[in-house]
Amino acid sequence: MTNNDNRMVTVTIDYPSVSCLKTTFDEASKNGFAYICAPLAHSLFRREFFHGKSKNRKGPFTRSDLCLSSFEDWAAVIGKISPYINCDTSNEYNRKTSEATLKQELSYACHLSLPAVIIPVNGPNVTNLSRVILSKLVPTTSIQIWIKVPLCDPVKQKKCFYQGEDEESEPTESEANDTWHWWNNLRTMTDSNKRVCVCVEVGGDVPAADGAVMRRWLGEPLRAVLLPTHVFVTNRKGFPVLTKPHQALVRQVASHCHDINFVVTGACRHQHFDLYLKYIGYLVQQKESTDPLATFTEGYEDFLQYPLQPLADNLESQTYEVFEKDPIKYNKYQEAIYHALLDRVPFEEKETSVQVVMVVGAGRGPLVTAALNAARKAQRRVKVYAVEKNPNAVVTLETKQVEEWRGEAVTVVSSDMRLFRPPADQLADLLVSELLGSFGDNELSPECLDGARHLMKDDAISIPCSYTSYLSPIQSMRLYNEVRGYKERIIVKESHFEMPYVVHQKNRFTIDQPQPLFTFHHPNTDEVPDNTRYKQLTFDVKTTSILHGFSGYFSTVLYKDTTLSIHPDTHSPGMFSWFPIYFPIKEPVHLKAGKKLIVNFWRLIDKEKVWYEWNISAPTPIPIHNPNGRSYSIKLH
Amino acid sequence: MTNNDNRMVTVTIDYPSVSCLKTTFDEASKNGFAYICAPLAHSLFRREFFHGKSKNRKGPFTRSDLCLSSFEDWAAVIGKISPYINCDTSNEYNRKTSEATLKQELSYACHLSLPAVIIPVNGPNVTNLSRVILSKLVPTTSIQIWIKVPLCDPVKQKKCFYQGEDEESEPTESEANDTWHWWNNLRTMTDSNKRVCVCVEVGGDVPAADGAVMRRWLGEPLRAVLLPTHVFVTNRKGFPVLTKPHQALVRQVASHCHDINFVVTGACRHQHFDLYLKYIGYLVQQKESTDPLATFTEGYEDFLQYPLQPLADNLESQTYEVFEKDPIKYNKYQEAIYHALLDRVPFEEKETSVQVVMVVGAGRGPLVTAALNAARKAQRRVKVYAVEKNPNAVVTLETKQVEEWRGEAVTVVSSDMRLFRPPADQLADLLVSELLGSFGDNELSPECLDGARHLMKDDAISIPCSYTSYLSPIQSMRLYNEVRGYKERIIVKESHFEMPYVVHQKNRFTIDQPQPLFTFHHPNTDEVPDNTRYKQLTFDVKTTSILHGFSGYFSTVLYKDTTLSIHPDTHSPGMFSWFPIYFPIKEPVHLKAGKKLIVNFWRLIDKEKVWYEWNISAPTPIPIHNPNGRSYSIKLH
Repeated sequence: MTNNDNRMVTVTIDYPSVSCLKTTFDEASKNGFAYICAPLAHSLFRREFFHGKSKNRKGPFTRSDLCLSSFEDWAAVIGKISPYINCDTSNEYNRKTSEATLKQELSYACHLSLPAVIIPVNGPNVTNLSRVILSKLVPTTSIQIWIKVPLCDPVKQKKCFYQGEDEESEPTESEANDTWHWWNNLRTMTDSNKRVCVCVEVGGDVPAADGAVMRRWLGEPLRAVLLPTHVFVTNRKGFPVLTKPHQALVRQVASHCHDINFVVTGACRHQHFDLYLKYIGYLVQQKESTDPLATFTEGYEDFLQYPLQPLADNLESQTYEVFEKDPIKYNKYQEAIYHALLDRVPFEEKETSVQVVMVVGAGRGPLVTAALNAARKAQRRVKVYAVEKNPNAVVTLETKQVEEWRGEAVTVVSSDMRLFRPPADQLADLLVSELLGSFGDNELSPECLDGARHLMKDDAISIPCSYTSYLSPIQSMRLYNEVRGYKERIIVKESHFEMPYVVHQKNRFTIDQPQPLFTFHHPNTDEVPDNTRYKQLTFDVKTTSILHGFSGYFSTVLYKDTTLSIHPDTHSPGMFSWFPIYFPIKEPVHLKAGKKLIVNFWRLIDKEKVWYEWNISAPTPIPIHNPNGRSYSIKLH
Repeated sequence: MTNNDNRMVTVTIDYPSVSCLKTTFDEASKNGFAYICAPLAHSLFRREFFHGKSKNRKGPFTRSDLCLSSFEDWAAVIGKISPYINCDTSNEYNRKTSEATLKQELSYACHLSLPAVIIPVNGPNVTNLSRVILSKLVPTTSIQIWIKVPLCDPVKQKKCFYQGEDEESEPTESEANDTWHWWNNLRTMTDSNKRVCVCVEVGGDVPAADGAVMRRWLGEPLRAVLLPTHVFVTNRKGFPVLTKPHQALVRQVASHCHDINFVVTGACRHQHFDLYLKYIGYLVQQKESTDPLATFTEGYEDFLQYPLQPLADNLESQTYEVFEKDPIKYNKYQEAIYHALLDRVPFEEKETSVQVVMVVGAGRGPLVTAALNAARKAQRRVKVYAVEKNPNAVVTLETKQVEEWRGEAVTVVSSDMRLFRPPADQLADLLVSELLGSFGDNELSPECLDGARHLMKDDAISIPCSYTSYLSPIQSMRLYNEVRGYKERIIVKESHFEMPYVVHQKNRFTIDQPQPLFTFHHPNTDEVPDNTRYKQLTFDVKTTSILHGFSGYFSTVLYKDTTLSIHPDTHSPGMFSWFPIYFPIKEPVHLKAGKKLIVNFWRLIDKEKVWYEWNISAPTPIPIHNPNGRSYSIKLH
C-alpha cells in the first residue's frame, strides 16, 4: 500500500496591483507567501482579435517571461485573467473578443508553466467559458483552472448567516443566485475534469459551519479560499484577526480539502501584509486534530483501495500486523467473550464446565489471545480451537501455541472452517470470528459462518451475533475522478465504476444520513440459509447536489451490549481497522432539493461468488451497475 | 457502402391455449403464421424455489425440447412467461419465488434458442424485473426480450382518442399511468440494451396517428404489436377488419419500425384464425409508399454512414455516379444559372457579353452540363471553367470536354480552387459550386468559397448564395445503440459519441420542430471572413421523452427563388442526394414535458480543420462533446 500526502495548506498573496512583477515577487517570497497572484496581461493592452485587427498592433501584449529570473519563480505565480473577459455575453463581438483574449492569456499561462489561473464566474451562464476552458485542458499541459465564485450570493449572505440553524431552507432558493450552481454548471460542462477546481471568495458573512451550504462546498474540489483583507478585523494589539465564524471556516476548509490555498486579496489594512499570513498560519496549525484516528488515517484521505478478498487470497503478514494494532477491536471482543462465558457457565460450574471456543479465521491469533484473557478474567475454563485456512498464518499460530499460549488448551487447526470436522464431543459453545469488511457482509462472513454451523452446539453463541450495513448518498467529485482514473484490474469497459472501494472519505458531501441496508444474524437456523438480499432505500434530497455514489458503513453486535461500529454517528472511538466503502456510479446525477432519491441495492450469490448490484430508480432511473457481478465479485473459494 | 434490409413484417399467432404444442405449431405453420406464442412452463407446474423446496419435486417443470421435431421449429416459437410472475411485489417470498421462476423460464428459453420471450409489465415499478432481465442478457445468448405494455393506459384511452388534435395536453399526465414511462424505466435500468424491445398491446381505442403519444412510440424499438381479436370488427361479408384508426396504426408501425411483428391474440371470433393473418397482410402490402425517395432509401433506414471528407479524400467514381443520378438537384442548378444569366446580361448584350462561369469542385461535370444547358436556354454566351482538385475526376472532365462539350467553350483546370490563378481578364461572373453536406456547411463550403473569392469579379454571383443548417432534438434508442455499437475509426474513448453520422432516420421521435442554426452568405465581403459560429437554441419539450441526440438538415438558396432543402417541412420532392445528419450524445437525458431544452452548438476552426462541439445546458447541463475536435473534425487540406 502506498499513500498520498496532500494535506498541504499554503497562503498566497493577491496584491491590489503589480507594477513590477520582480519586485513584488521578491517581497512576497521574503515574507513567506507560497504564491503570488498576478494579471496575465497588462491592463493597457486590451486586445481586439476579431476580424484580425490585432495583427496591426505593434509590441507585446504582456510582460515577457524574462521578467522573473527562472521558471521556478513562475511556478509560484497564479495567473489572473483580464477583468473585462466575458465569454457568455449576448453581444457577439464582445463574446468573440473575450474568447480570443482568454485563449491568448491561457496559452501564455501554459507557456509560462504557471500552476494555475483564476477565472471569475459571475452568474449561472457559463457555456462558452466552459468550452474555452475545456479546449485548453489538453494532455500536454498541466495547468489548473481555479473557478472563482462568491462563497454565497451577497444578497443571501445575511440569511445564511443568521438562519444557520435552519439549514434545510437555504438550498431551495432560486438556482440563479446559488453560486454553487454557477460552479456546478461549469464543472458539468467541462466533464468534471479534475484540473478544474473551485476557489471561493469569502464575504463579510459566512454560512453556518454545519449548514448544508458549507458542507456541500466541502464536498467540492475546493482549491483556494479568497480572503479579502476587509473581512479581517483588528484586535486590541492592532493585529488583523478573523471573526469566530471566519475562523471556523478556515479550520474547516483546511481539514476537509486537499492542498488548500488561502489567498489574501485587496489593499493592506494593517501594518504589513505578512501579518495576514502569520495569522492564517496560526489558525491552520491549531486545526491539528487530537483524534488518534486522524494520525492513523493521515495520507489515506480519498485514496482508493481495492477491498480485500480474504477467501480467495491469503492475506500478507503485514496486513495482519496492521489490523492487530487496533487499540479497540480486540478489547471489545474480549469483553464480549467474557460476558458470554459468564452467561453460559454458572458460578457453581466454573470448575467442571469446559467451554469450547472456536476461533474461525484465527489469522495470527489475536482472538485466541482475547479468548484466553476473557476466560482468565471470568474464571471459567475454556478449550480453544484456532481454525485458519491460510497455511502461512498457521505457522504463526503454531509458533504462538508453543511460545505464548503454552500450558493453555489451544488446538491449531489448519483448515477452511467450512471443511473442518471436529470430534463429535468437541462442538463449539462459542464461535468467534472477525470476518467483517467495511460493508459488514462484504468479506462473506454470512457464507463462512453458515458454512461453519456444523461446528456449533445447538445452543451455541456466535460472536458477532449480528451485523448491519448502512448506506448514504454522497457528492464527491474527488472520489468520482479517483475512480475514473483508476487503472488497475480493469477487465470490461467501465468496470472501475462497477466495484466498491475502501477509502477514507474526506472531500465529500453527505447528501442524506446513512440508512440501514442489510442485516445478518448468527447462527442462522433456517433450513436453507438465504443470504441474498434486496432493499430499496428512500433518501431525502435536502440540498440541490450531484450524486457521485454511496458511502457504506457497518455496525455489529458482538454480544448483547458489546458493539463495534464505523457508522459516522456511532463510530467506536479510536478504532481504525475499517475505512468506509464507496460505491461509485458511472455518470453523476443532478439531484434537486425537495426530491426523493430512491436507491436499489442487491446482494446476490451463485456457486462461485457473491456480488452487489445497485442503481437508482428516482428522481430518474439509471442503469443497474455490475449485472451478474461482471466487474466485481467476492469469490467464495 | 452496404446496407441492411430489415423492413420485414411478420404475423404471429398467440392462441388462447396450447394443449399440444406440436399440433398447434403445425396448424399455425400451415396457415402461414411466421411465429406462434406459447407459455414457457405448464401452468400446473407452479414452482417454489425459495428455501430449496423445489428440490423435492419429481418430474419436469415444462414440456421437453423433444416435443417439436427440430430446432428450426423452436426458432418460430415466442415464449410467454408464467402469468403469476411479479418480481416487484413488496412480498419478499413472492418476489424471490417470482425471480427464481423467471430465471428458470428464461434459462429454458435460451436452452431452446427461442428468438424472443414476451414479458408483461403492469406498472412503473420494474426494478427487480430489470435486474433479472439484465442478468440474462449475457453475450453467449441472443434471445430478445419483448416488454409488453398497453399502447396507452386503459383509463386514458378515450381521452387520447377523442382529443387527438390536442396532443400537447396528453403527456403531462401522471407518469404512473403513462405506459411509455413503464417501458422507459425498464429500458433505462437495463442500460438501453438493444436486445430489450417493446411490444405494445392495442386496445379498443388507439391514440391519434399524428399525436405525440403515437409518434413517441414510433421512436422506440417497437418489435411487436399485439392485436387482440376483440379489436377486429366484422365487415358485411363476415370477415374480420379493423377500424380506420386501427388500420392507420398498423400501416404507421409497419412503415416506421424495423422487423415488426403483428401478434394476433385471444379467442377466434371469426371463421378461422387465418382470416386475421390475411387481413393484416393485405393492410401491410398497402403501405408501400409511392414516393420515389422511398425506393432509393430502402435498406438505408437507420444505417449510420461516416460523413464524406471531400477535401481530405478524393471521392470515388461510384460516389460521383450515385449523386449525379439525382433527378432534382441539377435541374434546380440549371434553373438558377439560367435566371442569373438573364439578370446579368440584358437582351441587347446577348451577343457581345461573354459570362465567365466557374464551376468550382466540378467533379465529373454535371454542373458544367447544367451551365451549358442554361446558357443555351437563356440565349446567352458563356465561357465555362471546370475547376477540380481530384485528378481522377479531371480525367473524366477532359474526356467529356472532347466527347460531350466539344465546340463549347469549356476549360478544364486541374487545381484546388483555392490555389487556381486565372488570367486577370477571366474572373468569374458566376461561381457555381455544390459543396454542401447534409448539415450545409459540414463539407467546408464556407472555407472553400471564401478561398475562391479571388476568382470572382466584384459584382459576381455565387450559386448557391446562402445556406442554413437546422437542428431538432430527437429520441431514438435505435440510433443511440447503432452509435454505441459503432466500431470503425475509434481513436479515443467514446469518440463514436462525439461525431455526426449521415443516416436516413426512421425509428425515431422528433421531440420538437427543427430550428435554424448557422447561416452562410456568399460572396462573403468581410475583410477577414469569420466562419466560426456559436448559437444557443431553446426547444420546448412537449412530451416526456428521452434525448438521444439531434437531427440536422439544411436548406440553400441557389439563386433568388430557386432553393434546395432537406428540412422535413420543405424537402425538395424526390431529391435523394442528402440524408439527414445525426449528432449523438453520450448518455440519454430524460426530458420532462413542459420543460425547456437548451442546446449549444459551435462551429470551430483552426489551421488544419473545422469541427463542431455541442452540449445542452438545460434542463440539466451535460459535458461539451468533441472538445478541440478530438474525436471528429473536417480536414481543410
